[in-house]
Amino acid sequence: MFAEKELLLVPGPTPIPPQVQRAMMRPVINHRCPAYEELFAGLQEKLKRLFAVNGEVFVFPAAGTGMLEAIVVNFLSPNDPVLMVSIGWFGDRFGEIAERFGVNVTWLKLEWGTAATPEIVAKAMDETKKPFKAVLITHNETSTAVVNPVKDIAKVVKERGALLLVDAVSGLAAMPLPMDEWQIDAVAAASQKALMTPPGIGLVAVREEAWEAVEMAQMPRFYWDFRLARKFQSHNQNPYTPPVTLLYGLDAALDLIFDEGMDAFFERHKRVRDLLRNGIREMGLELFVPDDKIASCSLTAVKVPEGIHGGDLIRQLRNKYRIEVAGGQEHLRGKIIRISHMGYIHESDMLLALGALKSALKDLGWSRNCP
Amino acid sequence: MFAEKELLLVPGPTPIPPQVQRAMMRPVINHRCPAYEELFAGLQEKLKRLFAVNGEVFVFPAAGTGMLEAIVVNFLSPNDPVLMVSIGWFGDRFGEIAERFGVNVTWLKLEWGTAATPEIVAKAMDETKKPFKAVLITHNETSTAVVNPVKDIAKVVKERGALLLVDAVSGLAAMPLPMDEWQIDAVAAASQKALMTPPGIGLVAVREEAWEAVEMAQMPRFYWDFRLARKFQSHNQNPYTPPVTLLYGLDAALDLIFDEGMDAFFERHKRVRDLLRNGIREMGLELFVPDDKIASCSLTAVKVPEGIHGGDLIRQLRNKYRIEVAGGQEHLRGKIIRISHMGYIHESDMLLALGALKSALKDLGWSRNCP
Repeated sequence: MFAEKELLLVPGPTPIPPQVQRAMMRPVINHRCPAYEELFAGLQEKLKRLFAVNGEVFVFPAAGTGMLEAIVVNFLSPNDPVLMVSIGWFGDRFGEIAERFGVNVTWLKLEWGTAATPEIVAKAMDETKKPFKAVLITHNETSTAVVNPVKDIAKVVKERGALLLVDAVSGLAAMPLPMDEWQIDAVAAASQKALMTPPGIGLVAVREEAWEAVEMAQMPRFYWDFRLARKFQSHNQNPYTPPVTLLYGLDAALDLIFDEGMDAFFERHKRVRDLLRNGIREMGLELFVPDDKIASCSLTAVKVPEGIHGGDLIRQLRNKYRIEVAGGQEHLRGKIIRISHMGYIHESDMLLALGALKSALKDLGWSRNCP
Repeated sequence: MFAEKELLLVPGPTPIPPQVQRAMMRPVINHRCPAYEELFAGLQEKLKRLFAVNGEVFVFPAAGTGMLEAIVVNFLSPNDPVLMVSIGWFGDRFGEIAERFGVNVTWLKLEWGTAATPEIVAKAMDETKKPFKAVLITHNETSTAVVNPVKDIAKVVKERGALLLVDAVSGLAAMPLPMDEWQIDAVAAASQKALMTPPGIGLVAVREEAWEAVEMAQMPRFYWDFRLARKFQSHNQNPYTPPVTLLYGLDAALDLIFDEGMDAFFERHKRVRDLLRNGIREMGLELFVPDDKIASCSLTAVKVPEGIHGGDLIRQLRNKYRIEVAGGQEHLRGKIIRISHMGYIHESDMLLALGALKSALKDLGWSRNCP
């Protein structure tokens, strides 16, 4: 009976609001007709507001990983020197994609669980003396639940004349990232994170000032070609069939975000995060990222107490309490669990998560050691 | 009141059966959990049956165009000589993608409205004396409503030792294309055509014997990398977040196809096509492709009578009769309309289409000239 009752707390896909679910039930329409053009025109306006950008927001049938590739092939040429600031698994993937396409990647790999700082980035750019075409960085690193101070990093990058290309797949809408104000040249995002829509839509926003770089880039491209997409988008069209039902959902989700208010949306994410973090501390568990200043508002990583394996904890939460959380990646496998609070997440969901976590740990024989 | 009442007869997206619609209402789940792995394992089995292939079927969050790019970057290397057999707009696109990636394309462009033949392809391969790595061809050309005789063309291509890479985006499931039996090395498809699922899923099937070519190809790739996808698929997983809700739909749609029976599914497409073509002829209208032997079972192109513009006819069908059909592309704009009968299309839909077409033409002042 409870097969479809589940609290989905993995960092994407995230829970779908009923308003979004209902919007997606509308019948599929022809993507070459006035009704679609009206939908897509409205969507483009809303997306520009979401990214706080005056340039273009491109909409692809794709996963977030595709958007990282789209940024690489639209902004860079083979052998371009770039600085890859990686603080975890997704930073590594972004850089790996760039290397795969022949980009000359200088790695600034920081310890998992820490954030980059403007000082570290400035030093890395200055020391190597390479004429970096771009700095690639993750906004919110999903593998460690850390958010990078993109605003301050943007300043040192722009002072040095490089492009700033940001993976915000799991950060956008959960935390502020006003593109024009911060001078971010490109931002990648995806539907299934804080945007509360099922997976299948990838987004890249491009700042108007960065458009010339797209025109100059020499990487071969067709599917991801922003030049082609831009030509079609100016007529509220796409170069190929868009994921219509998912776009209905995204459109409804954006309405929900603007109805709540973007600032209120950010504030709620912070509030929900704090409720969870306080509860974790009170329970006597350890946060993987103790420093609130770099702790993500998208998700929280919790250390699994010694003597318990993360996999067992995840299965117990799933099977007994119908709560789905994520484990750790790479060397953190079994050692942390990651609880998402992106998008359609309410304080009450966190209360339930805390209660279930406590119960599941007890089931597995854990007893609180500290006072 | 009738805003959402529409008979969708464009060649993709196509109507969604209620069974598929309901399946997509299931809640989104974590793509890294046993329930997803079960879904994806079943889906892979069904897809192999659909493509009639023993190799792999890759599932991407993408449009059909992405699948053409995926074939190019996974099978070819820069400067590889290939023969592009194009009989229309989508053949041209396939070849354009290959050229964009530095492939050495020899074009065999045939007149729009005609099909390729094994003789023409053999002659083109023999005359140029190029060591063609591959022949690229469209199964069903959506712009002209023509189907190529892929079975016979495959024979001459295999005799000459080249790979056969097929765009079957609008043909798969509407007409037979058994990959292993016909020795087709790769086939591209998409969800929103005869597969009766909303747009957003791209598919490429690869014959086991063709796998070595994928390993040897030198084109840079990450998102489309079949090697990466294969590694994950062997554990019923994907390299990045799959479009879960659309996969629910595809799974349900495949069940509908197998419940009807694949042969019966093909037969119905032919029957529905014949009903439409006979009706068009009886009405005194001209078919763009008079020859039944090369006429597509996916869609039918009808010449717009002289004195009437195709755009007006499309708008009349849309606004007065709530039927959505497609126009012509390139030099056929305004001169033909294209009526899809892919997927969830019943004889009764064609009766309605015929009735509406007759009425719309009358509204526009057409009177039948011939007896």
